[in-house]
Amino acid sequence: MRRLAVFVSDGTGITAETLGNALLVNFPAISFERYAFPFVDTAEEAELVVREIRDAADSGALPIMFTTVKAPAVRAVLDGAPAMILDLLSGPLTELERALGTTASEQLGQYHGVGDMERYFARMRAVEYALEHDDGQSLRGLDAADVVLVAPSRCGKTPTTMYLALRYGLRVANYPLTDDDYHGESLPAAVAPHRERCFGLTTNARRLSQVRHERRPDSRYASLEQCTYELRRAEELYHRFDVPFLNSANKSVEEMSVVILRWLQERDASRRDQREGTPSGVRSKGART
Amino acid sequence: MRRLAVFVSDGTGITAETLGNALLVNFPAISFERYAFPFVDTAEEAELVVREIRDAADSGALPIMFTTVKAPAVRAVLDGAPAMILDLLSGPLTELERALGTTASEQLGQYHGVGDMERYFARMRAVEYALEHDDGQSLRGLDAADVVLVAPSRCGKTPTTMYLALRYGLRVANYPLTDDDYHGESLPAAVAPHRERCFGLTTNARRLSQVRHERRPDSRYASLEQCTYELRRAEELYHRFDVPFLNSANKSVEEMSVVILRWLQERDASRRDQREGTPSGVRSKGART
Repeated sequence: MRRLAVFVSDGTGITAETLGNALLVNFPAISFERYAFPFVDTAEEAELVVREIRDAADSGALPIMFTTVKAPAVRAVLDGAPAMILDLLSGPLTELERALGTTASEQLGQYHGVGDMERYFARMRAVEYALEHDDGQSLRGLDAADVVLVAPSRCGKTPTTMYLALRYGLRVANYPLTDDDYHGESLPAAVAPHRERCFGLTTNARRLSQVRHERRPDSRYASLEQCTYELRRAEELYHRFDVPFLNSANKSVEEMSVVILRWLQERDASRRDQREGTPSGVRSKGART
Repeated sequence: MRRLAVFVSDGTGITAETLGNALLVNFPAISFERYAFPFVDTAEEAELVVREIRDAADSGALPIMFTTVKAPAVRAVLDGAPAMILDLLSGPLTELERALGTTASEQLGQYHGVGDMERYFARMRAVEYALEHDDGQSLRGLDAADVVLVAPSRCGKTPTTMYLALRYGLRVANYPLTDDDYHGESLPAAVAPHRERCFGLTTNARRLSQVRHERRPDSRYASLEQCTYELRRAEELYHRFDVPFLNSANKSVEEMSVVILRWLQERDASRRDQREGTPSGVRSKGART
């Protein structure tokens, strides 16, 4: 069974797509053909969308349209589309107005706008920091790191680093563990002074071997034996020096990033509490955003 | 006026936060204190959340809770929180069930799960590609690029490159324009063979000067005069060689990425149409996702 699913937004469409996909995933038996229409903020743009839906939909079942468009003039045009329309914003917005006892501002959809420039600069700086400190390239400046990701090669350090920088503006360095690092009495010299910023990654040996084979087929580096060895030693290292870690094998970059962000916020909150004499752990669960 | 806003999710919380924030932005007069509770997938976790909300909320107005939690046992606990609860999923899910004439699967919330591994690998490869080709570092392998971002230094190439790689798994290289590049009879030699993959960025001179001053204060490089000159020549270059471009001054990384993704998809669709003899432009608006 196939069905057209379209996401129509007056901005980037990220809200409509994120929630729309979270809804569609509940219907695994249906294969959805997805189209995104971002930046639909005029009646003319909306007419193009309606025309395209009409062209695509003439045979078969009624398309599903997820929309976050709020401007009434634009919505009026979209309502003419031959589609089942799910307005993702207006229902909860009405509820929210009731809860807050006030009406929503007329100035809508400014979320990803000019006001985000400061955040944008912070993220740009964080990405540059990540680039400079990727794969142990530069071990200067680790004092400025929010997090130092530590792991054997190909456990997912780099994408996680970049995602944390881009989405949360965090300064993340990363350090690749090698065979030399497993025998010392301390963490590797480069990261030992920063133990409290270190976060480890591991994965499972079969997955790691598969990923490494992609890069260097049939090498010792990619062998299951070597991968098993490195992961075991890395996990021992994390345990020995009390470095928190997680297994990237069944986690997306987003999931790993949220876990790391939460750890960071809990660590900082408990430090703050210690300074201020509040018992640690009182506010340990919710991550302030 | 201050108000507590909490986001409770059984996954990363990205859906709850994205839509929740899109809703809260409609109430600019209220200052929201936001807390995220990701991975709340057991009744015990939910009890911790309820306790924290109770602790935080004892004075003042009722907190707002945005949730995407679906498991009834977990929801039942959350419903006991002293908060106004906005369920972001169940309303549209019921509508969607009606539209599709079927009930939602019991297997819920698997969106960011194991099934995404292929996508995860593609994104890892794309991030690595972006790292290798950042700032003209390696000009080999541009044949494999989906996009080559071209711009003067500090116009936002790098974060846009990384975002496109991480979110969409696109292979993006970038090339920094310098004074030497503006006088030739063609695009710079390194990118000339790839004109159809090139996408330009520009910004405004005052913003660029400000960003460059951060890196090299009071340099000629950061002077308003030099920035004005470079941006003017870069834009001339884009016009002369028919390179599409956009101004990053008032755009977030997400917005730029969506514009570039859409351009890419339109370009590929029109190529496909040319090959298949379909008039180009028929499906030019919707970006298949």
